[in-house]
Amino acid sequence: MTDERFMEIALALAKKGMGRVNPNPMVGAVIAKEGKLIGQGFHERYGGPHAERNALRNCKENPEGAVLYVTLEPCCHYGKTPPCTGAIIKSGIKKVVTACSDPNPEVAGKGIDTLRTAGIEVVTGILREECERLNEVFFHCIQKNTPFVVMKYAMTMDGKIAVACGDSKWITGEEARENVHLDRGRYSSIMVGVRTVIKDNPLLTCRMSGGRNPIRIVCDTNLYTPLEAAVVELAGKAGQGKTIIATSCKDKEKQEKFKQRGCEIIVLPKENGHIDLKLLMKELWARGIDSVFLEGGGTLNFSALQEGIVNKIQTYIAPKILGGEKAKTPVEGMGVERMADCIRLKNQRITRFGEDFLIESEVDDTCLPG
Amino acid sequence: MTDERFMEIALALAKKGMGRVNPNPMVGAVIAKEGKLIGQGFHERYGGPHAERNALRNCKENPEGAVLYVTLEPCCHYGKTPPCTGAIIKSGIKKVVTACSDPNPEVAGKGIDTLRTAGIEVVTGILREECERLNEVFFHCIQKNTPFVVMKYAMTMDGKIAVACGDSKWITGEEARENVHLDRGRYSSIMVGVRTVIKDNPLLTCRMSGGRNPIRIVCDTNLYTPLEAAVVELAGKAGQGKTIIATSCKDKEKQEKFKQRGCEIIVLPKENGHIDLKLLMKELWARGIDSVFLEGGGTLNFSALQEGIVNKIQTYIAPKILGGEKAKTPVEGMGVERMADCIRLKNQRITRFGEDFLIESEVDDTCLPG
Repeated sequence: MTDERFMEIALALAKKGMGRVNPNPMVGAVIAKEGKLIGQGFHERYGGPHAERNALRNCKENPEGAVLYVTLEPCCHYGKTPPCTGAIIKSGIKKVVTACSDPNPEVAGKGIDTLRTAGIEVVTGILREECERLNEVFFHCIQKNTPFVVMKYAMTMDGKIAVACGDSKWITGEEARENVHLDRGRYSSIMVGVRTVIKDNPLLTCRMSGGRNPIRIVCDTNLYTPLEAAVVELAGKAGQGKTIIATSCKDKEKQEKFKQRGCEIIVLPKENGHIDLKLLMKELWARGIDSVFLEGGGTLNFSALQEGIVNKIQTYIAPKILGGEKAKTPVEGMGVERMADCIRLKNQRITRFGEDFLIESEVDDTCLPG
Repeated sequence: MTDERFMEIALALAKKGMGRVNPNPMVGAVIAKEGKLIGQGFHERYGGPHAERNALRNCKENPEGAVLYVTLEPCCHYGKTPPCTGAIIKSGIKKVVTACSDPNPEVAGKGIDTLRTAGIEVVTGILREECERLNEVFFHCIQKNTPFVVMKYAMTMDGKIAVACGDSKWITGEEARENVHLDRGRYSSIMVGVRTVIKDNPLLTCRMSGGRNPIRIVCDTNLYTPLEAAVVELAGKAGQGKTIIATSCKDKEKQEKFKQRGCEIIVLPKENGHIDLKLLMKELWARGIDSVFLEGGGTLNFSALQEGIVNKIQTYIAPKILGGEKAKTPVEGMGVERMADCIRLKNQRITRFGEDFLIESEVDDTCLPG
């Protein structure tokens, strides 16, 4: 088997930690001796042993002289667990193959240096892109200290997310909607605007078996969320995840009613007529929220892009045409004034789900205002 | 070489007839003897010899016992030229490989039957899809007796074709725009609405070297086209192709001014507040126009879809976000009332042009109104 093939197995193992290791990265590792897989492991839960240690522990043969494949540079510092480099050196592993280096400034190449100094051969960059993409949240957070925000919307081939009266069930087919549920379990919170809460009364739960419910965040400048909304009701129930309402409304009595029902209220100043989204991101980060899955309507989506908090956009495109000058589109608000002021996207990737396409792009933050 | 490989060469030859053989199909043919290519040809111009005859004539060796690869079933009837089946049988070809059968009811399998009756082995269906797609216009026209209409628009990732004030230069990058010019030479006419003429004053020419200028059609219910518009000026110039203005305006004096400048005026009754597009298609068909490249704005695009005249949609998608509740979208008008009434598309294909995507889809006419 080739290095790539072993790394693919390590990558598949890493994915098993999805939703369970944040804010740590997902990491997988396999150990091969004479081309034969003799051990494998992954980072299973936050605070638990790292992938390298699990792979070493699970070895069916003595790892002395073997090759270790690991999706991320091994750590060389004391965190919740002792450094992996020590365990690797001690095990007698003769070669380490990694996909990408750890952006954590406490590691960042030092793990590799430590191994090389101990006489271990190190190869880097095998399946780098795939492994970095898997840990997009971790790579972003460790460098920017703010949650990773993914804006998702589903539109028709003519760019509509709903007809004029609001009907939007369903734009995309089953496969695409299933993937959205998968992503809801992948990011630690879901954010919507109060208009969506009023119009659709969504549950915002992850309907995948074994999926984890994300934290629900409602952007509600004037505190218009109905007390009977599903997201408020869910806040009071065990195991359903919490609900945060971000508002600029200072009415303590009104706030209290939501608190009594189990919601958390974050009060923020206004910016451009709505809650300050940049400040909201700081508040969320302070609460340990590393990622936000933004399922907003056109108004919230434009504000989020305008404030520069969006990192990635997921555009589902369905083979349908709705037409309508007054039909809803994914990004509305004031819009930019001239073509030259457009928000640029980069690194697009396309995936097909049944009859629908998903285009994923990164926001080119070099072109953002401010 | 495999059958597929020889057929690919035949297909590449067929494409050389693009824009020169309408309303005939583009056809390519190669002749191989003992796995070696000994002759090739294509249908070069309307009224000229068919691909099979050109390939036979160009043979460097005696084609007796050879294999003929041809992208379309050979004809067996007298048209502008005598039947190809006769020439093939006479040449001593022992085997014929075709991609698709001729939908022309005068041929439709009879060509293949004639060859088989003469003792020639016939294999069909090699690269069928690719060859049918190349002749989408021909296949449509021969069955429906109405022009093949391709709606094209370029939008941002949030479904906008222009900002609120109308600025739309440019949504897509150079590679995508170059492909549009290629398509302008591929279809026999370009159609726009009067709003586009007033706003953009487009030339609607094919700016590819060696490209043929398509017939320009302006849908102008009230005859608002400015006499100074580029499309009117071009109408009077030699070699620039003609301009047709379709209108419901009965003012003879006004019409006369356009006629004096070389434009053709087609007067049509109104349907849903604009010229009857179905009748326009009949008028165009009567003038030998087999295909329409519709580069309309949102209003004309919705009317065209509503009237059921659109066969294919080309959606270019650029990695940009414009936002704006009032920004322009590709299909506007009244729109459908409910999601269930949407116009469905099928057989999507995706191509990348630089940073942009092109999604091509067929309109599912089983779901159209009427």
